[in-house]
Amino acid sequence: MFEEDRFSLTLNTTLSEIYHQADSCRRTVERARERGRIFEQFLPLKDYTDILLTGCGSSHHLAMCASFGWSEMLSRPVVAVAASELAHFPEHYLERGSKPLVIAISRSGDTTEVRLAVERLKREYGARSLAVTSDGGSLGNACDAEIVFDECIERSVVMTQAFTCILVGMYLLVDSATGEQRAGEIGQLARLINDSVLTTENGIRALADDDGISRFFFLGSGLMKGLSDECALKLTEMALDTAFSYRTLEFRHGPKATLNSKDQVIIFPVEAERPHLNTLVAEITATGARVLVVDVQLPEFTDSRVATLINSQPEIRNPKFEVFRPALYAHIGQLLAYWRAAARGLNPDSPRHLARTVILEV
Amino acid sequence: MFEEDRFSLTLNTTLSEIYHQADSCRRTVERARERGRIFEQFLPLKDYTDILLTGCGSSHHLAMCASFGWSEMLSRPVVAVAASELAHFPEHYLERGSKPLVIAISRSGDTTEVRLAVERLKREYGARSLAVTSDGGSLGNACDAEIVFDECIERSVVMTQAFTCILVGMYLLVDSATGEQRAGEIGQLARLINDSVLTTENGIRALADDDGISRFFFLGSGLMKGLSDECALKLTEMALDTAFSYRTLEFRHGPKATLNSKDQVIIFPVEAERPHLNTLVAEITATGARVLVVDVQLPEFTDSRVATLINSQPEIRNPKFEVFRPALYAHIGQLLAYWRAAARGLNPDSPRHLARTVILEV
Repeated sequence: MFEEDRFSLTLNTTLSEIYHQADSCRRTVERARERGRIFEQFLPLKDYTDILLTGCGSSHHLAMCASFGWSEMLSRPVVAVAASELAHFPEHYLERGSKPLVIAISRSGDTTEVRLAVERLKREYGARSLAVTSDGGSLGNACDAEIVFDECIERSVVMTQAFTCILVGMYLLVDSATGEQRAGEIGQLARLINDSVLTTENGIRALADDDGISRFFFLGSGLMKGLSDECALKLTEMALDTAFSYRTLEFRHGPKATLNSKDQVIIFPVEAERPHLNTLVAEITATGARVLVVDVQLPEFTDSRVATLINSQPEIRNPKFEVFRPALYAHIGQLLAYWRAAARGLNPDSPRHLARTVILEV
Repeated sequence: MFEEDRFSLTLNTTLSEIYHQADSCRRTVERARERGRIFEQFLPLKDYTDILLTGCGSSHHLAMCASFGWSEMLSRPVVAVAASELAHFPEHYLERGSKPLVIAISRSGDTTEVRLAVERLKREYGARSLAVTSDGGSLGNACDAEIVFDECIERSVVMTQAFTCILVGMYLLVDSATGEQRAGEIGQLARLINDSVLTTENGIRALADDDGISRFFFLGSGLMKGLSDECALKLTEMALDTAFSYRTLEFRHGPKATLNSKDQVIIFPVEAERPHLNTLVAEITATGARVLVVDVQLPEFTDSRVATLINSQPEIRNPKFEVFRPALYAHIGQLLAYWRAAARGLNPDSPRHLARTVILEV
């Protein structure tokens, strides 16, 4: 009994952190101005030739999602680059003589490649840098300033609520720098995330418990690619599932070849590619695979192999809101992975082969 | 007997195309000046704010590899972006008022998203564009000029020799624009590719025939990421294998969790990350998985779970040559996929669910 209790306790830690994300985001919204003041020292952003968001693993995926929010709000390209790429191939990403701003994201604040990237860009390009962490850690010492998202500190090994919470915080940061033009929409995210969890949890639970599924494929383009990557990673980390992530239309250029009737494809459509959604879904179902479309409007699919998770609240359907949608869906990969792990008797709090902070001896 | 003969004939088509790549590259080298003259109309390259290479599937992967060669030779960033991303999210990748040069790669010349990307960038940014094809096709009509790599025309559905041949052609193109400074190294590629095939084919064949392997993981960073993606795609397309591609150090941030003793990891190391290679390999073998290191120098591994494919010719070991190495290794994924398909009785010439040209109704 003791063992079982201890197991329940640790299971509850991860699940509780997943369910806590709406509440954490509420607090993140409340703290927007305090953090906007820290960010003020980096203004005006037009002084930088490049704005780069960087991180490793889940932090890189959240940087990918945030980069689309930033580029839309700033009306300029903002690039997310994996920290190891930036640390080892900076000349591929930056012009000589460029003056970059680096937003360095690390939950622990101790991820080696993130620190290496910041140090190299400071040394070779005079980059300025902002550490974005949850735990604090040592990254702040390598950067010009630090923002600590301590409202989403996690005990679990894999990142769950911190993904959503820091993502919302990133939206707010650039909104504070651009005159709070999107504060109304971003301020609603906490409530909308809560609604999204309630709308989707039963559908996700059913999918997690379906042992007829052998592999998961997540498809997302643009602002949804980082989300898609993160969902696949959660399944890999927590449930040791075989899970893939592809850009939506790239999936047609080869990867779909292996699909069979034991495969589950999950699509996060974007408005720009909506005209192609029916074609894509028909090609997938023709292989025998099943499709789940996570969307904001009821589609026209009649095939029994196509299921939907629809959250059709008016705010979300507004095309201008699209860039913030990844924050509404991160829990889908998290809950799917959590329940799938639980169904297999795995403990998501101590996933195999993984450590909470990934250190690289240098 | 007729059926068997026909099957042998078609198998031989793909295999012959794979083995033909060194010879095709020799002809590509011979035609460098002729194509350099076509490219002259886009000079000087400093007139463009951005140089973008784009394509879908294998063409995107070759664009990723080529982008590192181009950025090194031009001493400026050159970005590879999937054509669907460029067509649907151009503002995420380009500043307002930018003047981009787009190199649009499509074997058939008829890939829908590539044409859409070119047309949108021309309309919204006044982009100039060069079509890079093998078959010709209609893409040239949408672009300012066209280069047809007809020495590597393929009958097979999946791209094999055209990947290597067009990649070498891309290196030569920018070399012609920068005074043929690297012509000596690039000119040796045909011979080095031939040597690389002979050095590696037995090791690859053994791996392909090993039915103890259930999943393949390819790891590559920077200039090797496109190659890694392409190897995974070949296995998926031809052999219907479960195959993944990750950035080398990103693999430590979660994805390695699922590894087990039936998994084969194939690493394409880059010089910048060599200090971390032993750490990575030790972490992988600790999971029970096996590792194959494809490299230019004999490593120090003593673990029986680590195998190597070493081509240690002096030209290849030269660090300046590194950026061209992807052209030496593309056949590895191709041969592995071909022989694995053959071992399973699959016909690589007519892979399941795939068409030679991927059209999207618009």
